[in-house]
Amino acid sequence: MMSETLPEGIELTPLKRIHHPQGDIYHALKASEGSFSEFGEAYFTTVTQGETKGWKQHTRMTMNLVVPVGDVTFFLRHVETGQHMAVTLGADNYCRLTVAPGYWMAFKGEGSPLNLVLNIASIEHDPGEAVNVALETYPLER
Amino acid sequence: MMSETLPEGIELTPLKRIHHPQGDIYHALKASEGSFSEFGEAYFTTVTQGETKGWKQHTRMTMNLVVPVGDVTFFLRHVETGQHMAVTLGADNYCRLTVAPGYWMAFKGEGSPLNLVLNIASIEHDPGEAVNVALETYPLER
Repeated sequence: MMSETLPEGIELTPLKRIHHPQGDIYHALKASEGSFSEFGEAYFTTVTQGETKGWKQHTRMTMNLVVPVGDVTFFLRHVETGQHMAVTLGADNYCRLTVAPGYWMAFKGEGSPLNLVLNIASIEHDPGEAVNVALETYPLER
Repeated sequence: MMSETLPEGIELTPLKRIHHPQGDIYHALKASEGSFSEFGEAYFTTVTQGETKGWKQHTRMTMNLVVPVGDVTFFLRHVETGQHMAVTLGADNYCRLTVAPGYWMAFKGEGSPLNLVLNIASIEHDPGEAVNVALETYPLER
């Protein structure tokens, strides 16, 4: 699924799911954790099964990505260093993916009917700090 | 669903859902918004349809509650002031519910199969700041 060592600026943190008879609890991010930098905005994005959103590069935002519903494959690529990886997050791999600024990212919906991504971002949405290119620009490599 | 004026320390903020052909985007919380105080922890809690979790009182935590999947009714009660209210959040009422410390809260799953609550809390989980009493202690009043 990915190389043994992650590219620089990428962290993958296993998260707890705590069973509760009336409904489970899922961890996402604590301020005391090493992968937390700053709170700018939390928002959800969904991606339909079989669809791939991307590529987008954030030049200032650090992303903390969690998939509480469905399964989503994230493709990451650093054009300058040539590093790339892919990882599927969801029920079978409940982890937080932390992505430093500078990476290009695309992500594909794998589950049905809903694939839900929470991004706890270090800055608020700012169209001026993000760059978009067509999905065909880079291969969807693991 | 609730009184015209909300009890002191409670805020209900309508949130944007932005249509995207490959999957919609849902706002949750920005650091610049008035109801943001501090980032301590983000976590999810689920509640099965027909089940009610509660009552719990946080003595230091401010909660920012969003329901991206399903429908959840939140019951809030301030024992000292006698103020109480209930509100259902979900697809038909996509809002953020901000709750100051001191309120007792119970919440009921209304949707199927999944009712998912995101809490962006002002402090990290600390069992010493929360008090639990049985559901029968207070009525589930609107």
